[in-house]
Amino acid sequence: MALEKIAGVRAAARDVEPFVAELFTAAGVNRESAEACARAVVDASARAYDTHGVRLIPFYMQGLAGGRINKTPSLTVTEKAASAVHVDADDGLGHYASYRAIDEAAKLAEKTGVAVATVGRSTHHGATGVYTRYAATKGFVAIGMTHADAMVIPHGGASAFFGTNPLSFAVPVEGEDPMVLDMATSSIPFNRVGLRRATGQPLPEEVAVDDKGEFTTDANAAVWVAPVGGADYGYKGSGLAGMVDLLCSAFTGMGHGKTMASFNGPDFSKPIQIGHFFIVLSPAVFQALSAFDARISDFLADLRAQPAKPGQKVYAPSDIEKGEAKKRAVEGIPVDNVTWGALEGFAAQYGVKVPAATADAG
Amino acid sequence: MALEKIAGVRAAARDVEPFVAELFTAAGVNRESAEACARAVVDASARAYDTHGVRLIPFYMQGLAGGRINKTPSLTVTEKAASAVHVDADDGLGHYASYRAIDEAAKLAEKTGVAVATVGRSTHHGATGVYTRYAATKGFVAIGMTHADAMVIPHGGASAFFGTNPLSFAVPVEGEDPMVLDMATSSIPFNRVGLRRATGQPLPEEVAVDDKGEFTTDANAAVWVAPVGGADYGYKGSGLAGMVDLLCSAFTGMGHGKTMASFNGPDFSKPIQIGHFFIVLSPAVFQALSAFDARISDFLADLRAQPAKPGQKVYAPSDIEKGEAKKRAVEGIPVDNVTWGALEGFAAQYGVKVPAATADAG
Repeated sequence: MALEKIAGVRAAARDVEPFVAELFTAAGVNRESAEACARAVVDASARAYDTHGVRLIPFYMQGLAGGRINKTPSLTVTEKAASAVHVDADDGLGHYASYRAIDEAAKLAEKTGVAVATVGRSTHHGATGVYTRYAATKGFVAIGMTHADAMVIPHGGASAFFGTNPLSFAVPVEGEDPMVLDMATSSIPFNRVGLRRATGQPLPEEVAVDDKGEFTTDANAAVWVAPVGGADYGYKGSGLAGMVDLLCSAFTGMGHGKTMASFNGPDFSKPIQIGHFFIVLSPAVFQALSAFDARISDFLADLRAQPAKPGQKVYAPSDIEKGEAKKRAVEGIPVDNVTWGALEGFAAQYGVKVPAATADAG
Repeated sequence: MALEKIAGVRAAARDVEPFVAELFTAAGVNRESAEACARAVVDASARAYDTHGVRLIPFYMQGLAGGRINKTPSLTVTEKAASAVHVDADDGLGHYASYRAIDEAAKLAEKTGVAVATVGRSTHHGATGVYTRYAATKGFVAIGMTHADAMVIPHGGASAFFGTNPLSFAVPVEGEDPMVLDMATSSIPFNRVGLRRATGQPLPEEVAVDDKGEFTTDANAAVWVAPVGGADYGYKGSGLAGMVDLLCSAFTGMGHGKTMASFNGPDFSKPIQIGHFFIVLSPAVFQALSAFDARISDFLADLRAQPAKPGQKVYAPSDIEKGEAKKRAVEGIPVDNVTWGALEGFAAQYGVKVPAATADAG
């Protein structure tokens, strides 16, 4: 996965995170929700998941202003059984509920080996990989999913039914950052279509469809995106999207993705009622930790040493992002000009001081 | 997913299953292993998973004769914690261990909400979806995985590292058969390459690579297959294959797929040491069953009613196979001529009577 260049500014993650928390708090969000959202979006930016980083802040501000997102939620945590816990997010920012879900599931998994945390009545939680990675930093292995509003056709379909329904997996690695897989079950996110409309560039083959459901590379003709696998193997991406949708709805009490209001409005007043689904595993229950760690390290060393096709290199999931994260720890996180302008506007509106930033990014 | 035509014979599943069990028993396999393998391969054939159906019997007979598969294993079941159980398959047929793993995990999940069953020191277990489906017939939701010997390049790689590492998901559906997703994380299985070599037909784009790691549609130049997602998005299939490999190795005590001996020999004497990984969920712990069932049914009704592109129809996972299964319940399961000939040979060798069959299939 190649990283896209971002024209904008750079600022230190340690400065941006308290600024974002301050901004949300000034906008009326309760302290724990504001801090969790700031932590999640800055973590995503710091780790090179730019689509789910600080650029989402204006989107969250819009939902908070419209009333879709509850500024002062009261989370309810219900232990359903020894390995099952439900978090009712009370329509608040999904980040707070998702960190909490990992904490609760980890507590149970430590004793029982595995636990599921379901989250209901939630909203957009940013990058799902932020939470599975968080679990991995605590020594757990985690699988995370969220469903979303319909943007993706089912295989063979002519109209969107699934969200981009990401699937994430994270595992602790001895002596280095966790390995994180965080993948949409569509080939591309819909905002890639918008980007190509703006630049006039064609789309890749078999990733988007026109209003008849036919694949098109014309960004202006594209109305929906397609499941990973394309024309021949899209039933696999479609099947995975369905698995994510079912686990995030039937287990959480929410409706499936197609029943959700569009994340992009025009109505920003009604709660969107998203579900998230997390599986947290305690490796030490299954294997001696030293043996477990050795297996993971052996796997990664062997994978990274594989011969590559000419001009390429074989990476493990998140290797590229981990390299970029090291750079960003020194140089700061990139914030595109549009987002930076919006942040300056919010800062002025709420009387919060913007962090120091340097022009130039990319 | 289109079903392939099979030139051969048809026989009733209820006749083939005891025949297969008898054959394995006559070859020295203990009763429970023989019955479990017969049940699994005939179930796969009955449900139209022909690649993992009765055609595998000669492959298992070869492994049993060579000593790779232990004919008389003693399973060991170890409860590691309230939601974690390990099944040591003692190098026996993986089918028996996998059914047992589902049974054990279901017992735990009923109380705790979710349980993981790991299987170690196992061998090939056929179609992973057979076991997740079995869990669903008992009212559970299940995710199942197995790793395998290296046949699939990692994204960007020039040499096989992953097995076809399938991921399966099954969920009970009120008033109909369970919904089962059972997908290799490669676009195609390697035997598709062999088939195209025989027929002289080109391969689809971006599903197989030559000895430099370059994608090729020439079946004779193809040496490995590629992860789902192809040239641009193969990092997703590769990431999923890695997740499966890690869960099936680090949690089970087995090595990762690349360390396994080839399933196709030439050495059929040494155990192959496969791991399987099952997650079993009890829906009733999370939601009222009536509400859960309604969510699943609503999802399926809505998905199946989606508009399709011209000449197509939108299916839920396993819909096509479920239609074919109804036909096979009446007409019998197809057995290709090569497999049927092998079965007749084994039957003569071990003095077992072949079931009644009619020529014509497809």
